[in-house]
Amino acid sequence: MERVGKQMNWGFVIAASPEEEIGYIRSAYDALSSPLVLCADGGLQKAEKLGIPCDILIGDMDSGGGDGAKDVMRLPMEKDFTDTQSCLEEAVRRGCSHVLITGATGGRLDHLLCNLHLLEALEKKGVHGLIADRDNLVQLLESGPVQVPACYRYFSILPIDEQLRGVTIEGAKYLLQDAMVQRDDSLTVSNEAPSGEVTIQVKEGRAFLIFSR
Amino acid sequence: MERVGKQMNWGFVIAASPEEEIGYIRSAYDALSSPLVLCADGGLQKAEKLGIPCDILIGDMDSGGGDGAKDVMRLPMEKDFTDTQSCLEEAVRRGCSHVLITGATGGRLDHLLCNLHLLEALEKKGVHGLIADRDNLVQLLESGPVQVPACYRYFSILPIDEQLRGVTIEGAKYLLQDAMVQRDDSLTVSNEAPSGEVTIQVKEGRAFLIFSR
Repeated sequence: MERVGKQMNWGFVIAASPEEEIGYIRSAYDALSSPLVLCADGGLQKAEKLGIPCDILIGDMDSGGGDGAKDVMRLPMEKDFTDTQSCLEEAVRRGCSHVLITGATGGRLDHLLCNLHLLEALEKKGVHGLIADRDNLVQLLESGPVQVPACYRYFSILPIDEQLRGVTIEGAKYLLQDAMVQRDDSLTVSNEAPSGEVTIQVKEGRAFLIFSR
Repeated sequence: MERVGKQMNWGFVIAASPEEEIGYIRSAYDALSSPLVLCADGGLQKAEKLGIPCDILIGDMDSGGGDGAKDVMRLPMEKDFTDTQSCLEEAVRRGCSHVLITGATGGRLDHLLCNLHLLEALEKKGVHGLIADRDNLVQLLESGPVQVPACYRYFSILPIDEQLRGVTIEGAKYLLQDAMVQRDDSLTVSNEAPSGEVTIQVKEGRAFLIFSR
């Protein structure tokens, strides 16, 4: 749905995944206008290194302290949800309409997969979520025209459901017309957009849209 | 199904994902008895660095040459499947009953997700697939007792389907009894097994089982 006239209130989450290079977090932060910054536990150390002011620190503090944050929500060590999930819920509570999640892809694959599917949880609450790391940008796929950001070479459609039906890709290097795409195949991986814009339609099924360098 | 009496023919795939540290690939290779080694394109360079003899090199050779392999399958640059998928298909053709995939998780998230779901493609062919990297080991979850390898601290259940029903976890730090687990929640992330063995039952739904350090 078009959000014309609606204010975009950005939440900016810095999660605690181990990462070799974190400079992209600063660039992502600088691209937004006054986002609400939420750090998941050790994410605060990244914020401090990058000079990003943290509005809310959320976590069990198992990977760092909390002096540098304006506000702190301390969670128990033993809990049924991750610190990153708590950050997203707090972002939603505080009225964010869009959330960009960083620091969420390195190290543990269980956390990465869990974080990817938190985009679905956000969507259920009407909030548009994005996950960025140094090499990738991930969002849930919506049918319609897509602007491929200039800094990414590839775009890929990764089915969440076992099958996507009626997939049409126009304006890209590899075209599809009303095709079926299986999750366990690699048909829609590594496409390119010569003009920077493609149009993607999916009649049935959910997928991630991933931009990569 | 129990494979008692059936020979385990291991395929060992080295994919081309960028990785900071590749020593784990050598350790994983050394743990297997005479596996068939398949390198996906630039994976060959890792094999050569680690002194692992490559039986088959498969790829469009966009990320490296092919002198060090016994056998080479050259694929076109423009194709409908990834080099890693081709390696798995060749491993199946050559009679592998088990395949361990390495080098498949770094860099591009589209490739990572695609590789994870290739485990489903293997399973459909009756082949047991595993993905390992420095920090993680991933397989499809089957109900029953699970030995958590000593080198991993955490185990997580990540739903592939939107819901898992009837999830029971016994012998772990966090227990579940006939529970429902949603894909967009983080309930079954970061469990631990004090005794090294847990028993997991899932009545309905598919999931990844992920061990992490």
